[in-house]
Amino acid sequence: MESYRTLDAAQLQQALLRERERHDSFCAQGLALNMARGKPSDEQLDLSSPLLSILAAPADCQAADGTDCRNYGVLAGIPEARELMASVLDDDPATTIVLGSSSLTAMYDALARLMAFGTEGHEPWERQGPLRWLCPVPGYDRHFSITEAFGIEMLPVPLVTEGPSLGPAMDEVERLVAEDPSIKGIWCVPKYANPSGITYADDVVRRLAAMECAAPDFRIFWDNAYSVHHLSDDATRQDALLDIGLACREAGHPNRYLKFGSTSKVTFPGAGIAALAASPDNVAEALGHLRAQTIGGDKLAQLRHSRFLVDGAGIAAHMARHASILAPKFALVQAKLHDGLDGLGIARWSDPRGGYFVSFDGMEGTARRTVALAREAGVVLTGAGATWPYGEDPADSNLRIAPSLPPIEELGQALDVLVCCVRIAALEKLLAAAPPSASS
Amino acid sequence: MESYRTLDAAQLQQALLRERERHDSFCAQGLALNMARGKPSDEQLDLSSPLLSILAAPADCQAADGTDCRNYGVLAGIPEARELMASVLDDDPATTIVLGSSSLTAMYDALARLMAFGTEGHEPWERQGPLRWLCPVPGYDRHFSITEAFGIEMLPVPLVTEGPSLGPAMDEVERLVAEDPSIKGIWCVPKYANPSGITYADDVVRRLAAMECAAPDFRIFWDNAYSVHHLSDDATRQDALLDIGLACREAGHPNRYLKFGSTSKVTFPGAGIAALAASPDNVAEALGHLRAQTIGGDKLAQLRHSRFLVDGAGIAAHMARHASILAPKFALVQAKLHDGLDGLGIARWSDPRGGYFVSFDGMEGTARRTVALAREAGVVLTGAGATWPYGEDPADSNLRIAPSLPPIEELGQALDVLVCCVRIAALEKLLAAAPPSASS
Repeated sequence: MESYRTLDAAQLQQALLRERERHDSFCAQGLALNMARGKPSDEQLDLSSPLLSILAAPADCQAADGTDCRNYGVLAGIPEARELMASVLDDDPATTIVLGSSSLTAMYDALARLMAFGTEGHEPWERQGPLRWLCPVPGYDRHFSITEAFGIEMLPVPLVTEGPSLGPAMDEVERLVAEDPSIKGIWCVPKYANPSGITYADDVVRRLAAMECAAPDFRIFWDNAYSVHHLSDDATRQDALLDIGLACREAGHPNRYLKFGSTSKVTFPGAGIAALAASPDNVAEALGHLRAQTIGGDKLAQLRHSRFLVDGAGIAAHMARHASILAPKFALVQAKLHDGLDGLGIARWSDPRGGYFVSFDGMEGTARRTVALAREAGVVLTGAGATWPYGEDPADSNLRIAPSLPPIEELGQALDVLVCCVRIAALEKLLAAAPPSASS
Repeated sequence: MESYRTLDAAQLQQALLRERERHDSFCAQGLALNMARGKPSDEQLDLSSPLLSILAAPADCQAADGTDCRNYGVLAGIPEARELMASVLDDDPATTIVLGSSSLTAMYDALARLMAFGTEGHEPWERQGPLRWLCPVPGYDRHFSITEAFGIEMLPVPLVTEGPSLGPAMDEVERLVAEDPSIKGIWCVPKYANPSGITYADDVVRRLAAMECAAPDFRIFWDNAYSVHHLSDDATRQDALLDIGLACREAGHPNRYLKFGSTSKVTFPGAGIAALAASPDNVAEALGHLRAQTIGGDKLAQLRHSRFLVDGAGIAAHMARHASILAPKFALVQAKLHDGLDGLGIARWSDPRGGYFVSFDGMEGTARRTVALAREAGVVLTGAGATWPYGEDPADSNLRIAPSLPPIEELGQALDVLVCCVRIAALEKLLAAAPPSASS
C-alpha cells in the first residue's frame, strides 16, 4: 500500500471518506466485541474443567503431609502447592509461599506492608516522605493503580523493545536510582511483558540486580505473570528469563527482589492460587506480618491445583493446550495488521512469543481517537493511555490489543474495525497538518 | 464436694498429693489431645462434602446473572453470594460485599485501609499520632494481634457476662471514648462471644451506636463470627442480636460500624467466603480502595457456597446439623466441670447457647500453671493470657476451652485432665498462702 505520508490533502480526504464509509458500515452492524482485557476465552477455561471436581470426597482433601485441607492452618501454603508455584516462579519451595487467589492482591499487600512497616529495620515507607517509583512504559495499568493508591509518584522510563538490551532502559534506570533515595522500587513484568511482549535480556536482569541504589530498601516488584505462557510448545520458540533471585544473590543484593505469580491464566482467573517468592529474609518478614492478617490461604484451592497441574512438566503440557488456542489468534492479529497497515507509515506493533498482548503504536496523537472510533463501532479496546502511569501517554500513540477473549471469527471482525479506526485517526491527523492541495 | 477454701494446710497437702497421683497417671498415658483452637471436627467438615463437587462442569459455573464465575471480574461479589452473606450478617445485599476466604483478613485489611487512607475525609490514622483501641476482655487473641501489628495501644475493658447488660461495660466505654480522641475503635464479637459466649444486650448495642465519641472517625469492628452458630435449633434456646447497623442509623451515626463474617465455621475454615457489611458510604469507600487491590474474589467459591447453602433457611438447616454434633460436646464440658469442680470454690465458667468456646475462670494466678500442667499430661489448651491484649491477663485466671475439635471420648479425657490440673494449680496456690496447720 502507498504510504499515507506521501499523499496530498485531496488524496488524504479521499482515503478518509472511503474509511469513514467502512466505519459507518461497521457501526450499522451493531457489533459488540471486546479486546480490552487479558481474559482467557471459554475454550481455554474449559481446559481446566477437571479442576472443578478433582476433590470430590473428604478423603481427597488430605495434603501429602496429612494436613486436612478443609480445616484451618498452614500459613505458608501446603508443601505440594509451594513446590508447584516454585516451579512457576523459578524458585525454591522453601522460599515460595502460597497466598490467596490473586497475585495483584499479593503485590498490593506487599507494598502495603512496606508502607506500614518498612523492611530490614528501615523506617516504614510512609514515614520516609514523598516516594517515587519507576514504571517501564508501556506497562500494566493495574500496577500503576497500586502505586497511585499509596500516593507514590510514578516516573515512566522507556522499555527497550528492540535490539539486544530488551527491558527497561538501564542507563536511565541506573542514573535515577543512584541519585534519588526517594525512588523505592520498580514495576517489572519481565517475561512476555504486558503489553510489549518482550522478555528482559539477561544483561538487563543482571544490571537491575547489581545497580547501586540510593535507597537501601529499594525493591524490584517482579511480576512474572506470564512465566509459562508461551505461544508455542517448541522450546526454540520460547523466551527464557534469567532468574532475578540468582542475579540478586550474585550481585550481593539478595533482598532486592519480590517475585509474584499466579495460576490465573493457567486455570481460572480470580479462582486460582497466587504466590510470592523471595529471599529467606523477605519471606520470613512477610510471614511475620501475614500471621496477623490470616490463619492461612484456601488450601482446597491449593490442593486442587497441585493435583490437577502436578508439577512443572504438567504445567508445560497444560500451557501447550492453551497455546494451541491462543497462537491462531495472535497469528490473526499479525495477519490483519500487516494486511491492513503495512506500508501506510502510520503504525508498528509487537509480535510476541508469549503472554496475552500485542502492543500497538499508531501515529502520535491518535490513540484516544482510535479507541473512541472503535467504541462507536462496537469494539471495546483497553483505554488509550492505560499503559502509562496516571493514564497519560504523552505521545497518545500506544494501544494494547488483547486478542485472547473473543472467538476467532469475532476477533477477525474486531481487527478489521481496529484497522479502519487506526487509518481514520491517522488520516484525520495528517489532514489537519497537511498543506492545502493544488486543486483546492 | 468440700470447698478447698475451708481446708487447712495438711488437708490441702493431702488433696494435692492425690491430684498429683492422678496427674502422673495421665502423663503416663501418652495422651495427645487438643482443646486449643475453635476448629470444627472432621464430622462437622463432612457435613459440607457436597460443596466439594457442586460445580462439576463448565455449565454449572454461571452465576444467576449470567457471569461466568471461572473468569475475572465482579469486585463486590456475585449477587447470590451477597444475598447469602447478607443473611448471615443481618444486612442488605446492596451493602454487603463478598471478599476473600477469611474474615480475619477482611478485618486486617479494613484496619490497614483506615491506617493508610483514613475515612470520610479525615486524616489517615497513621498520621493522627499514637492511637488506642478498646478491647473487651476476655476476647479474641487474633483481634488483638491485628491492632498490635499496627502499633495501636489496646485498652482492656471488662465484658459484663452476667445480668441484663451483657456486653462491654458501657459506663466505662462511654467515659473512655468521650474523653479520648485517640481511641479509634473497639473489637466486638457481639454474639456467642469468643470466649465468653455471651450475646450483647439490645441496650448495649444501642449505647455503642449512640455514645458520643471524641474521635469523629471512631469505628466499631463488629465481628459477627458466630451469628448463625446456635447449639440448638429450638429458637427459644437461641440468642438474638440487635442489628448494629439499624442502631447506628437510628442514633445518627450511620458510618460507625463495620460488620464482618464468614462461612469458615459453616463449611470449610479457610476455604469459605468472607464478607463485609457496612453503610453505603463505607462500602463505597472500601470498594474504591479494593479496586486497586484486586480484580475480584474467588467467584467459584462464592457460587459453590450459594448453591450449597442457598439462603438463610438453608444455613439454619445446615447449622442445626452442626449443633447436633457440637451440643453433646458442650454438654460434656458442663457435666465434667460440674462433677469435678462444683463446691470447691476455685472456678466458674460460662454455659453458652452458641459459638465455639467455654470461658473458664480459675483462681487468680493459676491459669498459666494450669495450662503448663495440662501440656505435661498431653492436653493442649489455648495459652493462658491469650484472651487479653498482649497476652497479659492481669489476674492470670482466664482460660478458653475449645471443645469442638476432639472426638467426644477424647474430649472427656481432656476435660478429666483439665479438672485435675485446675485442682492442682488451686491447691498449690492455696498451700502457698495457707498458715502452717496445727500438726506441723
